[in-house]
Amino acid sequence: MCMANAYLKRGTEKALILEDVAAIRCEGDELYLKPLFGEEKRIKGKIREIDFLDSRILFEQESTEEN
Amino acid sequence: MCMANAYLKRGTEKALILEDVAAIRCEGDELYLKPLFGEEKRIKGKIREIDFLDSRILFEQESTEEN
Repeated sequence: MCMANAYLKRGTEKALILEDVAAIRCEGDELYLKPLFGEEKRIKGKIREIDFLDSRILFEQESTEEN
Repeated sequence: MCMANAYLKRGTEKALILEDVAAIRCEGDELYLKPLFGEEKRIKGKIREIDFLDSRILFEQESTEEN
């Protein structure tokens, strides 16, 4: 059992958007991030990189829409 | 530190394509899977689902090309 932190890349910046992500589901342009506790978070974007050793997920956003 | 196993979904089947994935890099349609040991594997496809608790990555392939 091993959760990851999700970061969003915008230009040269990386912002932490969710901690302790337990699962990610990709549906079209949308990503559903499921944390261990709390509500699922939906973002528009793409997975850019996942580092399992560092428990880090990096997303990239093409549009500015975000929920 | 927490690696995952990568499965490829083809229709209703799921085939194990790589064990102990340490990192994934997405570049356009291509995914680069980096195992802890051994050579990086390139696949054409999309990430469908990642389960960090089960250490499982599920890919979906749109084309039949694979390296």
